[in-house]
Amino acid sequence: MAITISVFERALDEGRGLARDMRVRWALEEVGQFYEVRLVPWEKFKAEAHLARNPFGQIPTYEEGELTLFESGAIVLHIAERFPGLLPQDADARARAIMWMFAALSTMEPPIMDRDVVEYFEAGKSWQGERFAMVDARIRDRLAQFSARMGASDWLDGAFSAADIIMVHVLRRLEGSELLEEYPNLVAYIARAAARPAYQRAFAAQLALWEKAQ
Amino acid sequence: MAITISVFERALDEGRGLARDMRVRWALEEVGQFYEVRLVPWEKFKAEAHLARNPFGQIPTYEEGELTLFESGAIVLHIAERFPGLLPQDADARARAIMWMFAALSTMEPPIMDRDVVEYFEAGKSWQGERFAMVDARIRDRLAQFSARMGASDWLDGAFSAADIIMVHVLRRLEGSELLEEYPNLVAYIARAAARPAYQRAFAAQLALWEKAQ
Repeated sequence: MAITISVFERALDEGRGLARDMRVRWALEEVGQFYEVRLVPWEKFKAEAHLARNPFGQIPTYEEGELTLFESGAIVLHIAERFPGLLPQDADARARAIMWMFAALSTMEPPIMDRDVVEYFEAGKSWQGERFAMVDARIRDRLAQFSARMGASDWLDGAFSAADIIMVHVLRRLEGSELLEEYPNLVAYIARAAARPAYQRAFAAQLALWEKAQ
Repeated sequence: MAITISVFERALDEGRGLARDMRVRWALEEVGQFYEVRLVPWEKFKAEAHLARNPFGQIPTYEEGELTLFESGAIVLHIAERFPGLLPQDADARARAIMWMFAALSTMEPPIMDRDVVEYFEAGKSWQGERFAMVDARIRDRLAQFSARMGASDWLDGAFSAADIIMVHVLRRLEGSELLEEYPNLVAYIARAAARPAYQRAFAAQLALWEKAQ
């Protein structure tokens, strides 16, 4: 069945692969599934057609036959359940992989996204510096806890899984902030993931789209 | 197999059922599973024994035989996959229910939790009022979008599911803020959920724990 995903027509990140469609592209590349791309221009995010696919007017969305999904975590989990290769066979290991998807989105990502709120929406406020310090302290707590748990492991829990896709992509948003560099095992974890052929194909596809939009 | 969950020995919410173990208790009550409770005192959250169950030192955790899970979303999803009654049989409807779990945690909850950050961690700051206004505007956007999608539906997508447990619990954190009251269909949705016998048993259990701790 044909798969179509919605992505930004012009991503804000200038092709750095930080938009959340990168997670879905990467998962589809890992399981070897072809997909079509629907470009959503900025002025169409709140249009009825897009809100019917995602009531919050965000990307990515995923369509396959009669099924329409939004939320990158849910889409990646669906892909992992639908095609082999991204979830362990063992029931307990599978439950733990899904747990790490939720941990990435629910525990790691909120303070990391909050950093962008401070950077872009609190620019020019007298208290922006103080807020940066507070948010960075929260991020450092999470990174320290996560780094301690990761130790010298290659991946989150045994073999590479859908959870590594989400976690690596969440962490990548900190690139350039110098926060990640305090945790060499996390820097190595991201590099290990980014070296995967599926990651590189997905990255190249979204970058080509950005370059075409120039 | 015996199920054990970790909960606060003394919840900060004075028994209002806002701690995330409420989601797990409610799910277990919906599927009719008995569970044991491990009380975690505040000074033990960063102790090795608890960090082994959850590297981020949070509650709830879930143990069942050899399996240990953290993240309330992952635990509720595991319960829904393990016992019948909380996920639709139809594959597409099941994928959509899981999508709504991610939407509740990843799209709705972050700005709602941010409101608590402003209330408790930015108390006394000259800019607290300005931040409240910014966060409340983000919450209102989400509530308006979600209210529009819900319309007159009883539940998120057809029958009551695990996603309603997470969504209702996320929304309940706004009780008392007057933000919810702008959306009567969401107020009715929460009341409908809170009237379920499983919700009431779970609520009573956590309240009894709080009262005992006094």
